Amino acid sequence: MKGFIEPEPTGWKEHALAELEDDIGPGDPSAALLEATRCEWRIEAQAEGIAAAVGIAAWLLIGDDAVPLVNDGDALSPGTIVLEGEGRASEVLSRERTALNYLMLLSGTASLTRKYVQAVSHTSCRILDTRKTVPGMRRLQKYAVRCGGAKNHRFALYDGIMVKDNHIVAAGSVEAAIKRAKEARYLLRTEVEVTSLDMALRAHAAGADVLLLDNMSCEELKSVVIELGGKVPLEASGGVSLETVAKIAETGVDFVSVGALTHSAPALPFHLEVS
Amino acid sequence: MKGFIEPEPTGWKEHALAELEDDIGPGDPSAALLEATRCEWRIEAQAEGIAAAVGIAAWLLIGDDAVPLVNDGDALSPGTIVLEGEGRASEVLSRERTALNYLMLLSGTASLTRKYVQAVSHTSCRILDTRKTVPGMRRLQKYAVRCGGAKNHRFALYDGIMVKDNHIVAAGSVEAAIKRAKEARYLLRTEVEVTSLDMALRAHAAGADVLLLDNMSCEELKSVVIELGGKVPLEASGGVSLETVAKIAETGVDFVSVGALTHSAPALPFHLEVS
Amino acid sequence: MKGFIEPEPTGWKEHALAELEDDIGPGDPSAALLEATRCEWRIEAQAEGIAAAVGIAAWLLIGDDAVPLVNDGDALSPGTIVLEGEGRASEVLSRERTALNYLMLLSGTASLTRKYVQAVSHTSCRILDTRKTVPGMRRLQKYAVRCGGAKNHRFALYDGIMVKDNHIVAAGSVEAAIKRAKEARYLLRTEVEVTSLDMALRAHAAGADVLLLDNMSCEELKSVVIELGGKVPLEASGGVSLETVAKIAETGVDFVSVGALTHSAPALPFHLEVS
Amino acid sequence: MKGFIEPEPTGWKEHALAELEDDIGPGDPSAALLEATRCEWRIEAQAEGIAAAVGIAAWLLIGDDAVPLVNDGDALSPGTIVLEGEGRASEVLSRERTALNYLMLLSGTASLTRKYVQAVSHTSCRILDTRKTVPGMRRLQKYAVRCGGAKNHRFALYDGIMVKDNHIVAAGSVEAAIKRAKEARYLLRTEVEVTSLDMALRAHAAGADVLLLDNMSCEELKSVVIELGGKVPLEASGGVSLETVAKIAETGVDFVSVGALTHSAPALPFHLEVS
Amino acid sequence: MKGFIEPEPTGWKEHALAELEDDIGPGDPSAALLEATRCEWRIEAQAEGIAAAVGIAAWLLIGDDAVPLVNDGDALSPGTIVLEGEGRASEVLSRERTALNYLMLLSGTASLTRKYVQAVSHTSCRILDTRKTVPGMRRLQKYAVRCGGAKNHRFALYDGIMVKDNHIVAAGSVEAAIKRAKEARYLLRTEVEVTSLDMALRAHAAGADVLLLDNMSCEELKSVVIELGGKVPLEASGGVSLETVAKIAETGVDFVSVGALTHSAPALPFHLEVS
Amino acid sequence: MKGFIEPEPTGWKEHALAELEDDIGPGDPSAALLEATRCEWRIEAQAEGIAAAVGIAAWLLIGDDAVPLVNDGDALSPGTIVLEGEGRASEVLSRERTALNYLMLLSGTASLTRKYVQAVSHTSCRILDTRKTVPGMRRLQKYAVRCGGAKNHRFALYDGIMVKDNHIVAAGSVEAAIKRAKEARYLLRTEVEVTSLDMALRAHAAGADVLLLDNMSCEELKSVVIELGGKVPLEASGGVSLETVAKIAETGVDFVSVGALTHSAPALPFHLEVS
Repeated sequence: MKGFIEPEPTGWKEHALAELEDDIGPGDPSAALLEATRCEWRIEAQAEGIAAAVGIAAWLLIGDDAVPLVNDGDALSPGTIVLEGEGRASEVLSRERTALNYLMLLSGTASLTRKYVQAVSHTSCRILDTRKTVPGMRRLQKYAVRCGGAKNHRFALYDGIMVKDNHIVAAGSVEAAIKRAKEARYLLRTEVEVTSLDMALRAHAAGADVLLLDNMSCEELKSVVIELGGKVPLEASGGVSLETVAKIAETGVDFVSVGALTHSAPALPFHLEVS
Repeated sequence: MKGFIEPEPTGWKEHALAELEDDIGPGDPSAALLEATRCEWRIEAQAEGIAAAVGIAAWLLIGDDAVPLVNDGDALSPGTIVLEGEGRASEVLSRERTALNYLMLLSGTASLTRKYVQAVSHTSCRILDTRKTVPGMRRLQKYAVRCGGAKNHRFALYDGIMVKDNHIVAAGSVEAAIKRAKEARYLLRTEVEVTSLDMALRAHAAGADVLLLDNMSCEELKSVVIELGGKVPLEASGGVSLETVAKIAETGVDFVSVGALTHSAPALPFHLEVS
Repeated sequence: MKGFIEPEPTGWKEHALAELEDDIGPGDPSAALLEATRCEWRIEAQAEGIAAAVGIAAWLLIGDDAVPLVNDGDALSPGTIVLEGEGRASEVLSRERTALNYLMLLSGTASLTRKYVQAVSHTSCRILDTRKTVPGMRRLQKYAVRCGGAKNHRFALYDGIMVKDNHIVAAGSVEAAIKRAKEARYLLRTEVEVTSLDMALRAHAAGADVLLLDNMSCEELKSVVIELGGKVPLEASGGVSLETVAKIAETGVDFVSVGALTHSAPALPFHLEVS
Repeated sequence: MKGFIEPEPTGWKEHALAELEDDIGPGDPSAALLEATRCEWRIEAQAEGIAAAVGIAAWLLIGDDAVPLVNDGDALSPGTIVLEGEGRASEVLSRERTALNYLMLLSGTASLTRKYVQAVSHTSCRILDTRKTVPGMRRLQKYAVRCGGAKNHRFALYDGIMVKDNHIVAAGSVEAAIKRAKEARYLLRTEVEVTSLDMALRAHAAGADVLLLDNMSCEELKSVVIELGGKVPLEASGGVSLETVAKIAETGVDFVSVGALTHSAPALPFHLEVS
Repeated sequence: MKGFIEPEPTGWKEHALAELEDDIGPGDPSAALLEATRCEWRIEAQAEGIAAAVGIAAWLLIGDDAVPLVNDGDALSPGTIVLEGEGRASEVLSRERTALNYLMLLSGTASLTRKYVQAVSHTSCRILDTRKTVPGMRRLQKYAVRCGGAKNHRFALYDGIMVKDNHIVAAGSVEAAIKRAKEARYLLRTEVEVTSLDMALRAHAAGADVLLLDNMSCEELKSVVIELGGKVPLEASGGVSLETVAKIAETGVDFVSVGALTHSAPALPFHLEVS
Repeated sequence: MKGFIEPEPTGWKEHALAELEDDIGPGDPSAALLEATRCEWRIEAQAEGIAAAVGIAAWLLIGDDAVPLVNDGDALSPGTIVLEGEGRASEVLSRERTALNYLMLLSGTASLTRKYVQAVSHTSCRILDTRKTVPGMRRLQKYAVRCGGAKNHRFALYDGIMVKDNHIVAAGSVEAAIKRAKEARYLLRTEVEVTSLDMALRAHAAGADVLLLDNMSCEELKSVVIELGGKVPLEASGGVSLETVAKIAETGVDFVSVGALTHSAPALPFHLEVS
């Protein structure tokens, strides 16, 4: 489909269709009033941001052959027209809200992501998302994060291993926990959550593939970077905001993961205008 | 189920189960490392707000007999424990994220809703939600709006009729459009979107059941209230924020509908602590 | 799709496809005997009535491009050919019964509806359907009712409010019950079931949007019409038959609702002829 | 489940649950008004007939432990109480219509079936159903036919072979068609549709397992019975009504199949009374 | 679809699509690396055997218009190219394994079937499959059995009646059991499992439609053939292998059923070569 | 559930239930003949091997409280009773085949796996499965592989990255391809398919996490082990059989992956005996 960046998120058509059917149910009585009236319409961004879900909206409103005016990942300004068409007014109005709901949530996600990406662009640090997503929307939100220029962390519990306190207690030591984890699934890396330089050093020595530096101060982060920078990927996490992210990135960590990208991004406003 | 306010949202169990299965997929390799270890755990709020989805989280983590410490709609402070239990660590950790994702989004929605409700509590005006919801989450978000103390607008296209510009153009006049709408479905009210006092008066005269005053200034709203207040329900909409909602409510309109409740509420943070 | 009146019932393709798959299961051994034989075929009405489901049958037997000879809502006589085509005999015979089952039930519904509509055509009273439908067929039966010329009552529990005895007992008074109901959902009307003139007057005074006059004699109906006709929509219900409906309509009520349309309409016979 | 005759129809729980969810959708606003009110209720037959779907209604209204007062297949009179219980009024009223819709359709089917069975009870002829069923209800309607005392014909295209004109034309002769059919699937009998004594004799000689005597007069049927009675099962079909079925049965045929059982049975009325 | 023998197995597209989605899940990261690279590819058999699932593989890799180089049921040698195409490398590699898994299992089934068929080709005996299939693959495996030249036994419990010891004990005698069975469903034949000549004679006398000669020696089989050959279809079963099947067939039984066709056929190897 | 090893395969109940419903369809006419007869039954292994799916069979035949006599992973001999119970004969016989089909396939898989595991037990090499599984059975087959004592390779395309020829061509060099792959998904390891020592050395130097030594001779494997053993995990693959696996393992590779485990394991025979 036109409008998407690659790779397209899997399952988006079924998702959008189910959402549309849920809104229409046994029928849209308002649309039915319009009978055979036709109309021209366009969807306009109402704020600055980054587009995501343009392809989904295009498919819902136009169909398989739609060619949006803007692609996912493109920058938007107030007034940017992302999509326009001509059709039966009843169909356009029945589908408008569903299309806009995808556009608003996912462009909101992409836009907030881009702000974080820009805030760290003077460093080599990269922004990651998390599994703190809206129920039912994870694949699409992670796609929007990519539209915003950040990198996806694991998608789900099954595509990565995370060792935390509990695993260490259960295994008896951080070394034993990491050993067990590295054995657990053939092609999964093991990320170990640590909260101090000492623990970071032990985890690295025990073979952790990635270190999650959880809720550490910038000083603590720097001390870890000095010891382990370049030897193992370092991911900072916890208490990250647009205000703090630059300083965290400047410590030299490789990644900062930001839950807010997918749990607290405000919608980017769009408007469907009919004429 | 304990934890919910009445009526419970329909279909929440199937929704939560699908989400859990999506996260676990062919298996959670991190949880498997824990083998038979057991643990005590509790979920704690990390900010002020209003609880929603406590019953969902309780069911995911404990099951049908769960008794949460807090109910949906209750006020939360940083440190409020909403749920606690004891169980296999592997099950708790596999379900933690899914449970928290519901809690964070829906308590976030309830919390923002409560702020709007409080902002207009010195008036008789009531806060309404909209259909600007997150794809797949509408029934649950509308439930959270009720937890926050506001009233639900229609759920979908099928349980209410909305007459807009296009209908008026298609029908030839506002009177003809309203006549057609009132005929359209037996037990549905007709809400008419108007943008001026003059149009409001014509719509009222033509029998509109509810008026949607779209993007009017407070002066314009007041002029409509003077003419039509008490004669037909008046709903203000468009450009509403926490800063502006009190002034809008003070114009005397009966309702203010706020899209942000369900498209831009930041998550309320929660934490699952294991010991 | 050709053959339908507007608006098409939602979900009819999935419904018909599921039904077809249920009939064929692991394979139709009788059809398999026919190998590559082709045939011409036509579907003929075998009684007088009104067509419904012509578009469904056409799609099942011919596909998306089918053009039936008759449209839903058209009058049929014995011998009217509604659909004809040419194709592989094995496919036609595997799909024949499913197509005819829709045609027979839904044209039966439309035909009985038309009889009721004609029986009251000398009055301004209109015929309504009910929720007394065949499990799984409500949307399609309500479509057939429209093909027959009557109007749909609410589709389900969610698109209208009905206040009955129990609500009045629970609320303490008819006034309290209606007040509560009118508050309950934003764009739903409240219909109140009453069984006497006195109760009708109280319900009207309390703000009922529609009155359901349940099982009243024609004299009682007339007395309600004298008092409330033109002030609130009046729907008569209960014990309605083709013999009694004209007299009920002549009392001046606005609507008569008839359960038999959707729970007791005999099938209209059709025949698929192959040559 | 109590209330059923054996074997229970497969899949009835999923069927009933889907129907209930379809009626409630995002919520039943009328039931919500009742809050925690409880009530006693009973379901009463309002006409003479045969019960079917008592177990389904019992499960919908009471649950797995329900014990109905009447079982499927039992005779009903006006006033017979089939089910009674006590519970939350909101749940009872949300489920009432779904439960009654099953009871009314399926008891209607059982009741009409019983009339046909009684009409031929002085003969050894047995009544069969057909595949002319209501879309989506076949398994339940065929169960109701058994409740009424008749025998089921095949369930679907896959559990029996039917040879008609087309097969004979395609195969070149009735003998060739039957030969091919008997080879087609390992444990399926071959029924051959014939329209004359001559054709019946040829089909029998060619090894037909069952003969379908289609639209023959009683004289023609008798002539077939004289030649083939006791040698091959004989099923009469076409134009059968309650008026004609006894005469057809008296010709000596083994079976009469009646489409009306499942496509034109009027609902048997039931009433749910709350107190 | 090209590539299939008739009749196509029902539901194969949905089956293959679900399998593909299960393999790709949230995305195939290896394929994503290939970006827009295109490639030419071909699928080659790596052993002698019989093709099955060529149409499925073709649809997965090419789509509705695919024209395979070989059809199901055709003989394959090492090096036979069954399918070739050109396309995006990322799509080909994401779909390769799913396509090959169908080809390997089902061609394996067809190939083993063909060996059994050839082993008895000097007799009039025919090979049958059983219900001993791989969970979820029955319809497709039975299709592959037909590709291999054998005949399908019943598909499931519902399309045939099998009388075993238990039925005889429950009914009191073999005669009573068979009588009951022949009554049970209108167009289903009754097969009776017997373990001795004496029991075979009694079952035949009681009207069994088919006899299942279970685990009998070749001598015993011959004695049954001498008495009942040509009077009732005789199926030998139990302990059949490629070594023993010819001798069993030579006893004169009509059918031999072989569980190994569908529970123990080794995969036929195929290779997808990219260039 | 009793009978399983940990962790249980996800989704097994839904899988087994769907399979059972597919076998019973509209009803099992043979079982219906047994009416209320009860019976005692037991399932017996008929060959040496390793149990898998005992818990699934137990749940199908007995329910949630079943306690099998043998657990998955246990060794079986001809005559080992794995499960026994008492119940309605009709239910037991309707469920017998479904339960046995799981037991036979999955115990067959576990048994073949164990043979490979034992063949290499004198080395430190471990056996891996592949994605060459039966459509629809991957999760269950991979569980059976664990019952047999081997280790699972990735489950699907999404939980591991595999770099092959095509990726190298597309990226321009093996170094570029590996660099791209290691960037591709956050917690996935990159396995690189190599066919020579030289390529292995380059892939290792470029940072490959695992090397897949594809179709190399034992001499070639040894030369890779000499250079890279202990530095990067080495997996041999291609042309592995029970005859060759020991020699391959003795080369010193860390893993041997065997497609035959899941595409060509013969069923392990079981028998359900009723008394």
